[in-house]
Amino acid sequence: MTPFKLTEELLTTIEQHIENQDNTALHTMMADYHYADIAEVINELDEDQATYLIKLLESEQTSDVLTELDEDVREAILGNLSSKEIAVELEELDTDDAADIVGELPKDIVQEVISEISDRKHARDIVDLLRYDENSAGGLMAKELVKVNENWNVLNCVKEMRQQAESVTRVHSIYVVDDEGILKGRLSLKDLLTASMTAHIRDVYIPKVDSVNVNEKPEEVAKIMSKYDLEAIPVVDEIGRLVGRITIDDIVDVIREEAEKDYQLAAGISQDVEADDSIWDLTRARLPWLFLGLIGGVGAAGIMGGFESMISKHAILFFFTPLIAAMAGNVGVQSSAIIVQGLANDDLKGSISDRLIKELLLATLNGLILAAVLLLFTWAWKGDFPTALAISISLIAVIIVAGIIGTFIPLFLHKRGIDPAIATGPFITTSNDIFGILIYFWIAKSVLGI
Amino acid sequence: MTPFKLTEELLTTIEQHIENQDNTALHTMMADYHYADIAEVINELDEDQATYLIKLLESEQTSDVLTELDEDVREAILGNLSSKEIAVELEELDTDDAADIVGELPKDIVQEVISEISDRKHARDIVDLLRYDENSAGGLMAKELVKVNENWNVLNCVKEMRQQAESVTRVHSIYVVDDEGILKGRLSLKDLLTASMTAHIRDVYIPKVDSVNVNEKPEEVAKIMSKYDLEAIPVVDEIGRLVGRITIDDIVDVIREEAEKDYQLAAGISQDVEADDSIWDLTRARLPWLFLGLIGGVGAAGIMGGFESMISKHAILFFFTPLIAAMAGNVGVQSSAIIVQGLANDDLKGSISDRLIKELLLATLNGLILAAVLLLFTWAWKGDFPTALAISISLIAVIIVAGIIGTFIPLFLHKRGIDPAIATGPFITTSNDIFGILIYFWIAKSVLGI
Repeated sequence: MTPFKLTEELLTTIEQHIENQDNTALHTMMADYHYADIAEVINELDEDQATYLIKLLESEQTSDVLTELDEDVREAILGNLSSKEIAVELEELDTDDAADIVGELPKDIVQEVISEISDRKHARDIVDLLRYDENSAGGLMAKELVKVNENWNVLNCVKEMRQQAESVTRVHSIYVVDDEGILKGRLSLKDLLTASMTAHIRDVYIPKVDSVNVNEKPEEVAKIMSKYDLEAIPVVDEIGRLVGRITIDDIVDVIREEAEKDYQLAAGISQDVEADDSIWDLTRARLPWLFLGLIGGVGAAGIMGGFESMISKHAILFFFTPLIAAMAGNVGVQSSAIIVQGLANDDLKGSISDRLIKELLLATLNGLILAAVLLLFTWAWKGDFPTALAISISLIAVIIVAGIIGTFIPLFLHKRGIDPAIATGPFITTSNDIFGILIYFWIAKSVLGI
Repeated sequence: MTPFKLTEELLTTIEQHIENQDNTALHTMMADYHYADIAEVINELDEDQATYLIKLLESEQTSDVLTELDEDVREAILGNLSSKEIAVELEELDTDDAADIVGELPKDIVQEVISEISDRKHARDIVDLLRYDENSAGGLMAKELVKVNENWNVLNCVKEMRQQAESVTRVHSIYVVDDEGILKGRLSLKDLLTASMTAHIRDVYIPKVDSVNVNEKPEEVAKIMSKYDLEAIPVVDEIGRLVGRITIDDIVDVIREEAEKDYQLAAGISQDVEADDSIWDLTRARLPWLFLGLIGGVGAAGIMGGFESMISKHAILFFFTPLIAAMAGNVGVQSSAIIVQGLANDDLKGSISDRLIKELLLATLNGLILAAVLLLFTWAWKGDFPTALAISISLIAVIIVAGIIGTFIPLFLHKRGIDPAIATGPFITTSNDIFGILIYFWIAKSVLGI
């Protein structure tokens, strides 16, 4: 496979073909491309060019392209299509993708678009899906699945399956339900290929099947599917009726988005910006965290102002404040990151106090090693052993407190049902800067007996 | 589904059953559990208990359990099994998982273990896989796949498939090869279910199939599979022969591990530790980054020492050094994180200079807003407008430089083929601390005309 690469030249060629309305050339080019690649191209075109290309190509291809576009680009293009044209696109899509697009449409045209969908079952399924919270298993699932009744025989089942399979892009498992629609188990394709045609489904199906409730959080579904290596999972309602199916490709997106969100929070960026967003969007994502840093810095300046009387005799104490702040910040971020990751992976065992004791030992060990190095350096630099000792002792205390705060805050937030990832990054750094500098001057002052 | 939850009580019960050698109770309990859940249990047992349980259960179940265990637990258990016992476990596994386990065995027993595998084709496949770099598509792929020759007819194909499917847990696609074994295309199960039995494969197969080279990096495979929503991808050698298949469950692990690695690097933790690792392991992961911070702090102290003459008249300048360091660090981490993420997702368009100009504008905007707030505050606090102005102007300069460094370094590393993720976190913070404080004092000095 030669991977697709969107170069400047390629983009210019496509833009020229669009300007010249050279539809034959465009059709030929696009026929070779995967829909995800076409989406990459369209994300770079201007609105008129993008709309032209979408209208030119077959809905079979463009419907998938639409699902892959950046949200703002998709919104712009859909704004240029008639309700009928949108309905034709929806018709080609699986119900989950179709429902996602309908969910983004302006409220006043939703009804008209839905009414233009000629496959009424498809339309009903889409409307059903609109009812679920986007941030739940119901919001992720599709209605397309292959299900058979436990009372059928294998021959019926194969017939029915062939028909159902027409509308299902990927058959993973065949789900078995009873007359009430309650999920009972599953059949693998392999079992079906090897079973006798006259056998009854109730005698050959596997009664064990993992499933999730429609109200389950997407992160939980992701955890279950990746822990149990599932490629699809059936979704059931409150009384166990089979209502949909979630496939692994949607879960891959959930995992990526979760990881990006946590990463951005740790870096002090409110979620959901990309390098190519506008300066204004990027400022809105970054400025709040910088303000937090500014407040922390002002707090630190205030604390140092309180110790101003020491500055003439012990200027060196002031020189080490950036070091103290940096170490407090780094230790805090390290310990909180490990806790946040442990919580995300569900592999934190034991109580909060066990965690805190462990971090206490860890921070003490790290603190002793670092303080010993700093002691030697500072003593050698200024030849003032008491001050060097005071700085080093303070450093140990600061590292311990920073480690404890970094461990405690995410655990505390998690207990309260708040996403612990917000506790990493600037939040921890800023609070540890202030605590760190306060502890530092306070201990240094005591040690030096000022 | 009632999700499995490993409680203290459950663990105690299992431990007691093991102590009492109550094998019936253990068999009954474990029969209900998924292998991933049993692995969770065994990770918490001591070595003797773990070995007892593994030896008690059937290899059909324990082989999968072994693949899910923590590496150190698995190593300990395998150390207590004979070569024959290990071979029996390998026999039950897909070749990719078996090869991963063989790769972890002590070199001196590998040959013996392999010779004990009674299915010689399986043994050969495992040995073939050992040759590939762990960090490549070859290291991820399994030999289990369903392939048919383009010259067969559908009937042959179904027969052959039934047989091949016996050893393949999940059939995704049927791959079509020519007489040389070169990958030509694929057949979907759906196509096969609906095609005439006498049709030739060469007339019904889809000649377009995504594939990756055995030498491709796992991250690239993950990108391709998630971009194109693939659940399996065939792997070909240098001349296009089909040599294996990678499935999405392995890719989900790659994506999770990549995300964790980047997150940990951003937080200043050398990769691959968990909250439950020993204090010694955690210290080794955290201490190097803290040393980096220590060196940065000492550097900052040295710079401030160089400006010591200013301390009597302009003590306030020194009070704001933690603020300057924090802002330089935060801006640097923000801008580098956005670049690192853009690079990871392959969605950075345009040249390095475009990026730098954009960051310059962004940092200037943020800097102006933050500096205005700081100016008002500092002026109000000390009533010394020139000093307040000097601090604020320096802040703008520091933010701009920090943003440029944060943008440039990951782009530069990426160009050089180095993972840009190492540039985030402590690395950027520390270098920006030093640069920030240097610029700050230098500009403040000039503005105040000292």
